[in-house]
This record gives sequence, structure tokens and C-alpha cells, in this order.
Amino acid sequence: LAGVVEAVLSGDRLVLSRLITEVENISEPGKTALDELFPKTGRAYLVGVTGAPGTGKSSLVNRLTQVLRRERNLKIAIVAVDPSSPFTGGAILGDRVRMRDLTGDPGVFIRSMATRGELGGLARATSGVVQVLDAAGYDLIIIETVGAGQSEVDIARLAHTTLVVEAPGMGDDIQAIKAGILEIADILVINKADLPGVESAERALKSNLEMGYPGTINGKVGHRTVKQQKADERAGWVPPVLKTIALSESGFSELIAAIFEHKEFLETSGLHAQRDRERLEIEFENTLRDKLVSDWKLQVSPAEIMKVKDQLYLRKLSPSQAVEKLSKK
Amino acid sequence: LAGVVEAVLSGDRLVLSRLITEVENISEPGKTALDELFPKTGRAYLVGVTGAPGTGKSSLVNRLTQVLRRERNLKIAIVAVDPSSPFTGGAILGDRVRMRDLTGDPGVFIRSMATRGELGGLARATSGVVQVLDAAGYDLIIIETVGAGQSEVDIARLAHTTLVVEAPGMGDDIQAIKAGILEIADILVINKADLPGVESAERALKSNLEMGYPGTINGKVGHRTVKQQKADERAGWVPPVLKTIALSESGFSELIAAIFEHKEFLETSGLHAQRDRERLEIEFENTLRDKLVSDWKLQVSPAEIMKVKDQLYLRKLSPSQAVEKLSKK
Repeated sequence: LAGVVEAVLSGDRLVLSRLITEVENISEPGKTALDELFPKTGRAYLVGVTGAPGTGKSSLVNRLTQVLRRERNLKIAIVAVDPSSPFTGGAILGDRVRMRDLTGDPGVFIRSMATRGELGGLARATSGVVQVLDAAGYDLIIIETVGAGQSEVDIARLAHTTLVVEAPGMGDDIQAIKAGILEIADILVINKADLPGVESAERALKSNLEMGYPGTINGKVGHRTVKQQKADERAGWVPPVLKTIALSESGFSELIAAIFEHKEFLETSGLHAQRDRERLEIEFENTLRDKLVSDWKLQVSPAEIMKVKDQLYLRKLSPSQAVEKLSKK
Repeated sequence: LAGVVEAVLSGDRLVLSRLITEVENISEPGKTALDELFPKTGRAYLVGVTGAPGTGKSSLVNRLTQVLRRERNLKIAIVAVDPSSPFTGGAILGDRVRMRDLTGDPGVFIRSMATRGELGGLARATSGVVQVLDAAGYDLIIIETVGAGQSEVDIARLAHTTLVVEAPGMGDDIQAIKAGILEIADILVINKADLPGVESAERALKSNLEMGYPGTINGKVGHRTVKQQKADERAGWVPPVLKTIALSESGFSELIAAIFEHKEFLETSGLHAQRDRERLEIEFENTLRDKLVSDWKLQVSPAEIMKVKDQLYLRKLSPSQAVEKLSKK
């Protein structure tokens, strides 16, 4: 294992890939390596990119990476999180396109993740993978998610700066408003800005921003809480609305400038350190829960658990009475 | 408390309302009452109704309730879950409309729930509220959610039969496909079926069903896993696509027939009992986790936790090393 950690720190991409697989699978070697790499983390800047399918998110991420490489010479890792079934090939297809554009650049590392089982687990695994890439010395890590559902919101919250990507002409309404993900945006991007409808999309997003994100059609989803609003007003960051065209590279200098402006804002306001602590706090709580449950299961006999659960199924014990009964053993 | 449980069982609506508030707040009296009421649960049939804002979900639920009351004489409870901020009044507005249509019918009980804090908590609280209504003798409990995000999916999964509501003309694409909630549908309803675009909505939903739910635009979200597909094929339920018009009551007899067909299917196939056990299992696991963490926090001194967390923030300890260190005390 000592060899693995050293190889990762010295930039061995094959060993890095294999370690990420271990971390994804939450294996014992993966966990031990994470512990060893942990002191080296906390240096990468994490950018979340989320948005509905069809907004051209992946092309935007590819172009953003190319321009960042050319203009800033940063080492960049892309983690594409796809909550669809592993059988569908969505992630694989995205990868192929990526490979064509970015392959051969040793300063870029790309990894796709797909769900295996429950969604909460995906957010946990992604956090571990990001830690490995952080320790491995990637300066900027882009976490790309589809942006529908709580889990993707959790993943986007890993990031320091979150881009919510929109496209014009995808129906009458702005998808991000509908999906309730506007509230997590630090920067709003209208991609495919050469398509008709870009002005109305821009108007809709801006008026939503001005009204303090009053959600969707009849005010039902996507509200940021008053508390969140106030916190941001105090802190003084108003998400800019930018327009990009991935194909022609139009708008990418402005986008990159906005990302680094937000980075500076976080750092000077103290929010960067605060968010870092919050992230570590969540990791700690999750690790604690898992450990307590697995320790508990080692202490209580499976036969005993089965017996009590049978009484639960028959409604002779309530869930909390069942837990109470097993705890007394 | 003995009085409370008896009053609820004998149909006292005011006491029922107050108890639900206790359960929502996860107070001690609420928990004790849940334990006492638990043996009386497991009799209600739970129907989940979910869909994007603007699909006319609430009107559909109201009309469905009216027709069920008239034709089947069942006692019905409606739990409207609104994940928006408590400050926005979305839930309150919905309630007012409801009150006008359904007030005065002693066989109908309506309750709105809004988030207070984290989303996971909402699903937990909803489960408790449904248990109280079940024990109180409501035959059919309708759980209405907005249908964007993991939490709403969790809530819909409480249900025996889940309706996913769609409306024509809300853009080029079917919202349910985009939001990835098709996979939880037992019955698909195209509401507002008098609007233009109903045929194309129907075609899109049916072709998605035939292809085994291959998600959205570029196959990125909403896939049911192969495992789920196979399980359903074996079990033999293909979700019907129905059309309703809430205003004119058109299609509601067919909708009610489909709900009871699905109920019978679940019962004869053994899936009803299986899903019941799964729900109890989840309740048990959540209760266990909460108890272990709160017991643990009683045993470890806050000062000790603070000290270790400071080392975590400085990255001198990894999250799992921090947990390990505290467990040894």
C-alpha cells in the first residue's frame, strides 16, 4: 500500500485509476489509502457543473477544460457522475466523446462514475474519489452531474463553485427553475447561446435571481430559504448569468473569469474555510453512523435480529420498540 | 396520553390533528403515541401521487377523492407534502383550494406538510404521519408530492400504488421522463387531457414504457435498472397510461379501476406483503441509526468531540481516524 500512495502522489495514472476503483467500492485498501492521502487534500479547487440533459453540459465541460489548460496551465480532473443505470451506456458514450477531445493531454484526468445501488452511496463514493484526485495534485476538479434529484444536489454541494447550465429552446420554461436547482448556483450559464430563445431564457433567469429565486410555475419547488438568501446577501455574491457556445468557444474567457472571481470572493470572505469545515463535518457524521451500525451488528446475533424483526412484521413491536429490545441484549 | 390514543381511534379529528403535529415534530409524546398506535397500522391502502408543478396534481387528487367518496364510500386522508420553504405559502394556497372542494365531508381528512430543515427528515416525518392516519382508520391515504428530487421519490415509495401525473403541452418533452420519475410509476396519468398535445404525450410515455423506460433525451436519467425491469416482468404489471380531465371528471372511473386492479395485483402476487416488510425494514434501520448516534453522543464529551474535530479541520486526522479516536474513549 505504501507503494500505491507514493505512486499516486508521484503522478502514476494507472495506479491512480486502480485506487479510484478501490475507493468507489469502499474496499478496505481504498479506505486505508484515503486515510493516508487525507493530509494531502484540501488544495484542489472544486467546480460543480450541473444541469438538465440536453443543455450541452458535457461539451461545456470539455471546452472549459481545454481553455483552462491552454490559458492557465492547471492540472484538471473531471469526475462525471451519472445516476443512470450502469447498463445503459450513457456514461460510456460521454466518455468516448471526451476521449476524442482531451486524450493525450497528461494534465487532464477523466473518470466516469455510475450508480451501483442506492443514490446516497454515490455521493459518498464521489467525495472519496475527489479526495484522491485532490491529493494526487490536480489543481482543479470538475464534478459533472445530471442535476435532477437530491443526490446530485449533494454532489454539487461538494464543490466550491457550482455552475448551473441551461439551454434556450427546451420548452417554455427554464429547466433549472423547474428542477429546483437554481438555489445551488454560484454561476448561471446559458449554453448553446446561438440558438433562438436565448434572450427569454436570460430574462427568466435574471428575474428569478432578482426575486430571490421564487422557484417555479406556482411557487412550489426550488425556493432557497430566507436564511440562505440572507446569508448570501450579507456575503455579497450575486450569481452572474453568462452565455456560452461550446462549439465556437464563445463566452469561455468570461466564464473562467467568473469562476476565479467567485473563488476569490470565497477566500476573502472566509466562506472558503467555512465550507471546507462543513464538508469535513458531513464526512465525519456519515463515517460515524456507518461505524456505529456495523459495530452494533457485530454485537447482536443475526438470529436475535431476525426474531425481533418477525415481531416487527407482525406489528407486535413498533420500529422503536424493536430497536429498544435489541439494544438491551 | 392514553386518552389521546383512544380519542384518535374513536375518530376525534381535533386530537388527531394535534397528534400529527407532535409526530411531525418527532416529540417524545409523538413517539410514544406512535408506538401505541403501531399495532393498528398496516390496514390502509397508500396511494402516492407525484408529478411536476403545473400538471394539475392537486386538482386531480381533489377530484379523485370526491369520486372515491361518492362511488366507494371509503374514508380518505390526503397528505400533501411540499418540499418548498415554509415561507412561501405554496402549501397553504393548495390547502385553501382543497378546503373549498372537500370541507364538510367528515370522511375526508387533509394535512399539508412542509419542510423544516433537511429533506431526509421530511420523508421520515411523512412516514410517521401516515402511520397515525392508518391507525385512525382511514381506508385510503393519498400522499401527494411535487416529484422533483430523491426525497419525493422516497416519499412516493411509501405508497402501494404510485401515480405519476403528466400534462400535455409543457414543452417538447415529457417532464416525468426528464425528472427520472417514470421508474416509480405504477400508473401513468396524463391530466388536462383536453389540452392540445395529449396524443404526443401519450406516444412518448408509451414508447418509453415499451423500451423499458430508457430515460430521457440522451438516455441519461430515469432508467429503471435491468433488475427492476425483470422483477416487474416476472410479476407481470405493465403501468397503464390513462387520460383524465379533473374539471369534467373525465377518466376518473378508469383511474379508480386501475388503482384497484394494481391493488389486487399486489395482493395476489405477494408483493403487497413484501413491500410492507421492506417499509418496516427501512423504518427499523433509520430508528436504529438515530438511536446509536444519540446514545454515542451522550457518552462522549462535547469538549472531546471538539478537540478531535479541530484536528480533522487541520487534516491531521482523516474522518475515519477521527471517529476511531473518539470511539476508543
